Amino acid sequence: MTALVGIVMGSDSDWPTMKAAAEVCTEFGVPFEADVISAHRMPVEMIDYGRSAHERGLKVLIAGAGGAAHLPGMLAAVTPLPVIGVPVPLKYLDGMDSLLSIVQMPAGVPVATVSIGNARNAGLLAVRILAAYDEELRARMSAFQETLAAQARAKGATVRDGAAKLRKG
Amino acid sequence: MTALVGIVMGSDSDWPTMKAAAEVCTEFGVPFEADVISAHRMPVEMIDYGRSAHERGLKVLIAGAGGAAHLPGMLAAVTPLPVIGVPVPLKYLDGMDSLLSIVQMPAGVPVATVSIGNARNAGLLAVRILAAYDEELRARMSAFQETLAAQARAKGATVRDGAAKLRKG
Amino acid sequence: MTALVGIVMGSDSDWPTMKAAAEVCTEFGVPFEADVISAHRMPVEMIDYGRSAHERGLKVLIAGAGGAAHLPGMLAAVTPLPVIGVPVPLKYLDGMDSLLSIVQMPAGVPVATVSIGNARNAGLLAVRILAAYDEELRARMSAFQETLAAQARAKGATVRDGAAKLRKG
Amino acid sequence: MTALVGIVMGSDSDWPTMKAAAEVCTEFGVPFEADVISAHRMPVEMIDYGRSAHERGLKVLIAGAGGAAHLPGMLAAVTPLPVIGVPVPLKYLDGMDSLLSIVQMPAGVPVATVSIGNARNAGLLAVRILAAYDEELRARMSAFQETLAAQARAKGATVRDGAAKLRKG
Amino acid sequence: MTALVGIVMGSDSDWPTMKAAAEVCTEFGVPFEADVISAHRMPVEMIDYGRSAHERGLKVLIAGAGGAAHLPGMLAAVTPLPVIGVPVPLKYLDGMDSLLSIVQMPAGVPVATVSIGNARNAGLLAVRILAAYDEELRARMSAFQETLAAQARAKGATVRDGAAKLRKG
Amino acid sequence: MTALVGIVMGSDSDWPTMKAAAEVCTEFGVPFEADVISAHRMPVEMIDYGRSAHERGLKVLIAGAGGAAHLPGMLAAVTPLPVIGVPVPLKYLDGMDSLLSIVQMPAGVPVATVSIGNARNAGLLAVRILAAYDEELRARMSAFQETLAAQARAKGATVRDGAAKLRKG
Amino acid sequence: MTALVGIVMGSDSDWPTMKAAAEVCTEFGVPFEADVISAHRMPVEMIDYGRSAHERGLKVLIAGAGGAAHLPGMLAAVTPLPVIGVPVPLKYLDGMDSLLSIVQMPAGVPVATVSIGNARNAGLLAVRILAAYDEELRARMSAFQETLAAQARAKGATVRDGAAKLRKG
Amino acid sequence: MTALVGIVMGSDSDWPTMKAAAEVCTEFGVPFEADVISAHRMPVEMIDYGRSAHERGLKVLIAGAGGAAHLPGMLAAVTPLPVIGVPVPLKYLDGMDSLLSIVQMPAGVPVATVSIGNARNAGLLAVRILAAYDEELRARMSAFQETLAAQARAKGATVRDGAAKLRKG
Repeated sequence: MTALVGIVMGSDSDWPTMKAAAEVCTEFGVPFEADVISAHRMPVEMIDYGRSAHERGLKVLIAGAGGAAHLPGMLAAVTPLPVIGVPVPLKYLDGMDSLLSIVQMPAGVPVATVSIGNARNAGLLAVRILAAYDEELRARMSAFQETLAAQARAKGATVRDGAAKLRKG
Repeated sequence: MTALVGIVMGSDSDWPTMKAAAEVCTEFGVPFEADVISAHRMPVEMIDYGRSAHERGLKVLIAGAGGAAHLPGMLAAVTPLPVIGVPVPLKYLDGMDSLLSIVQMPAGVPVATVSIGNARNAGLLAVRILAAYDEELRARMSAFQETLAAQARAKGATVRDGAAKLRKG
Repeated sequence: MTALVGIVMGSDSDWPTMKAAAEVCTEFGVPFEADVISAHRMPVEMIDYGRSAHERGLKVLIAGAGGAAHLPGMLAAVTPLPVIGVPVPLKYLDGMDSLLSIVQMPAGVPVATVSIGNARNAGLLAVRILAAYDEELRARMSAFQETLAAQARAKGATVRDGAAKLRKG
Repeated sequence: MTALVGIVMGSDSDWPTMKAAAEVCTEFGVPFEADVISAHRMPVEMIDYGRSAHERGLKVLIAGAGGAAHLPGMLAAVTPLPVIGVPVPLKYLDGMDSLLSIVQMPAGVPVATVSIGNARNAGLLAVRILAAYDEELRARMSAFQETLAAQARAKGATVRDGAAKLRKG
Repeated sequence: MTALVGIVMGSDSDWPTMKAAAEVCTEFGVPFEADVISAHRMPVEMIDYGRSAHERGLKVLIAGAGGAAHLPGMLAAVTPLPVIGVPVPLKYLDGMDSLLSIVQMPAGVPVATVSIGNARNAGLLAVRILAAYDEELRARMSAFQETLAAQARAKGATVRDGAAKLRKG
Repeated sequence: MTALVGIVMGSDSDWPTMKAAAEVCTEFGVPFEADVISAHRMPVEMIDYGRSAHERGLKVLIAGAGGAAHLPGMLAAVTPLPVIGVPVPLKYLDGMDSLLSIVQMPAGVPVATVSIGNARNAGLLAVRILAAYDEELRARMSAFQETLAAQARAKGATVRDGAAKLRKG
Repeated sequence: MTALVGIVMGSDSDWPTMKAAAEVCTEFGVPFEADVISAHRMPVEMIDYGRSAHERGLKVLIAGAGGAAHLPGMLAAVTPLPVIGVPVPLKYLDGMDSLLSIVQMPAGVPVATVSIGNARNAGLLAVRILAAYDEELRARMSAFQETLAAQARAKGATVRDGAAKLRKG
Repeated sequence: MTALVGIVMGSDSDWPTMKAAAEVCTEFGVPFEADVISAHRMPVEMIDYGRSAHERGLKVLIAGAGGAAHLPGMLAAVTPLPVIGVPVPLKYLDGMDSLLSIVQMPAGVPVATVSIGNARNAGLLAVRILAAYDEELRARMSAFQETLAAQARAKGATVRDGAAKLRKG
């Protein structure tokens, strides 16, 4: 099946963070591909990847990067597809450098940025994008949101029990 | 024509910033609507707006907000559509509070965040999202990207002239 | 006994932080309730909780949230009661995102924000609020403040002893 | 009429910011007093003010301060009343120093902090606190919240008109 | 022997950080005292301590505090002596809140602030202050500075050895 | 008369900020000198200035610097005298770079840092240091502090009048 | 004459900032070229520019960029030449985003970053690099540094005069 | 063989970070020296080191420093050679203080700053500088960049395998 979502990152060390995006695709039955594409170490291949992405049938790109995180923005420069950026936190600065390097794109070339280290949300955003014209997928997203609500409700029991114990001393 | 993009903001004071998103829609011929929907002042209407958005034919929501900017995230909580957040800078902190309040969403509920005050990019991201399944619109996005390149090239003359003057002293 | 303080949070993972607010209520004999109410996962129930809070006899709400922390502000939008916000620190940014998302509310909808991760102070602030019209409770708050002073004084011995040891070498 | 809210600040240069809190009191018919009390220049009077506040009938204190903003926290140390802190922005740092100096209080001594420069919210929070045991005042707060919603709705016209103009080109 | 330096802190939990100041005093033979004085928990005693400090023969005060760190500034408000502030880092924000709360004092009431967690430098600054009018102590400070140079020079061997090993592979 | 306080800065463009320190010296009758000494442009003269300062009778140095502000720390490295650092704010970053470059000195070489742009406090701190062993000067400092209190008290009238006007509508 | 230094920027709006680098080249008689090369709008030309730079005789590249500033890092990825990055401050965040996006490069691909908005220093750094193997140019750099010292010394008169006036009252 | 690169740091505790720069020199066959030179503890030797560096044949200096990191800037003030600064992160603030203290140099005295803790990039930048006039070394740098690309490509397998596993469940 043709991949609809392309998940790329600058190094395999980002995979433990980024695989959460792939897991979402699996959960929602969305075909995806994942690879290492480094803006700084493979600049020409990066441009080729971006330029041909929509021709290969991809509909959304997800790019994770840390520090001077240039991959999402450079991909957005060479593809007409929506690009989702995941700020990967490095050893210092808690991902603030990654966030600003990804989100602060100049007018003309947007990157859809999600929270620091939150590749799961990148995956969910990709699903929402694909679902805009796919009613069946959108229904699954709505069902997923219902599940979130149910899970949150279920967690209330822990808190109510904890409160009850405190009251009894 | 049914609006495909819904552009909302907490107050009409955000319009001078947010209209750049509307202008993009106009440029690309994408039907849109724009309104004031305040998370803090009209919470119930905000939820109604979000819940019914996809039923009314909207495909993407763009929400601008400043400070403790809750509108994009709350809309994302009640719609299965992709929500694009624009951090509107207020009088203090240069939009850093708006940015963090919008982008740092918990797992499960993504907001596609663009750069501070950059509603134009929100509009362009909406077009890219719509174009994922619309080849004609994607071609227009590619053409637009060509225009950006041409404009940037043209600007080179100013710099080369300035450099020439410096050389001559 | 009717709860006067409602303590809510977005997930049971916040309970280890937030239970300090409940412990204060227990210490001061103030009836409270605690539950999971998620702005992003249970938005409609969140609004219902906020809207009915004062009708159920609650006098103060305490809401803990992290990251793009919308719960305190959204509750403040739907209740006339004072809402106390606790910025819960997440894995990155040391709670600075939580703090700004909670405290930077627009004019019209205040949230009484306490220090990062300091649910104990949220509980004590709730007691002070309840004590404004309850002389007996206020006397207990004054007594508590005396206790703080006594404890601080007692801790001086450790420091004086440490200093004495240094002097003797 | 006995003042219920005490509004204090370190200098008369804070009055243009802080008077918004007084205006709220006037709007809601809540008797208040306002004065200069400086933690750094009048430390003993500051302590006297805080210690006697509840004896004089005050129910809530509002304190505005900038930079190393010690006034709200020091008042909270000497009164059992709830103290609301307003971070006043100074010439540099956009009020971030004021915010952290006010909100980051140690366990035991809470300050209810509002957004940077937002004395109006401090006034509204004081009204909510007073309204906790005053049904009539709470009704007025609910009515005020309705007004906020109506104003926000009315502002929608400007945005819808602006959007209509864009559509027509 | 009368103490010349008074070292105070808000809790005995600050002692592990603050004792470095006391150790410097011991090294330089400067008599000192150390105690817990809390701005927020013992405000009146804090003021008494500050007001009487110079009458008891103290020449310099060193105050350590964290978070909304009010102790150094409040002492400076009630004593004519120089006050040295040590920003003690707490669990979150790496001491940035402590630093800003201590250093950003308003015109009229200075606090001599040293680096985050660096009570040793507070002690050395106190010695420099005392040495301004004490030639013998100043000579000891100069000798100490020579020692620092000698130690730094000695550490060069480690680096030169490490470099030599790298060269040999 | 021999100068007791040496006020130095990297450029005459710092004089409008730094002269406030000189004005304090004049107010308190403390002899001072002021000059441009640049760490980056006159490094050898800077070291000479620092090394000979105490021999020329100076008791305290005040150094103002902005950006990568190295002057205060480098002077502290070559003099046994107390060095007061004034973080001068430059065009960007609001003086945060200046503050961190001055205050974050390593163990062994303290700089007494005052608030951003606050040369007046640097002057007052110098006076407090000189006053530690000069009872007459300390009395003047105490009198000055009384004046601050009186001024603050006088400013209360403006606020009380403003409040009275609001009450009358 | 073949250009040795290539000065590039993303838009002609950066020229007012970046021309300071060109002026330095003119001052030192170093042949240079200047142009608009946009990482985001002309990605392929940007790569061509970088790849061919050393073949055309360039020895150093200077790249200015703001916000999510990718130009310096992307050039460094495709050239073996040293690349100097100038963080251009944009409307918000005072250049902090530009700085982090430029300086925080991953291991393998360095960018020599200078201070925010300081293209003059980029030019001077380029001269120093060229001078490493050009004794005559290095002598000119040393002479330039002497000039800086002389200018700084001359500025001392303004400060000494200002101080003299203060002394006389 | 005469060292071309001088690697210095304020203490041997910086060696574990800084040796990465030395390792690069070894990899590229560039002769180097490494030593402890402390701006704050050995100021005169530091100036001597900087002043004589180019006379001893050094072409580039690399200086690592943390906190109020003055070493790179002070060396740049006394040498005409290019100076590369490595911000060494200390216990608090994640190296942000080190970065600003190094990069924010005033006009006239540039420091080529690399990313926080990234001494490897400092070494690579030194090699690029030396390679500007050394074709053979530049070829080695180009080859090294090819290696980076090959390594990145190889890492793709891990990610593609991980993705394949997810697809199979």
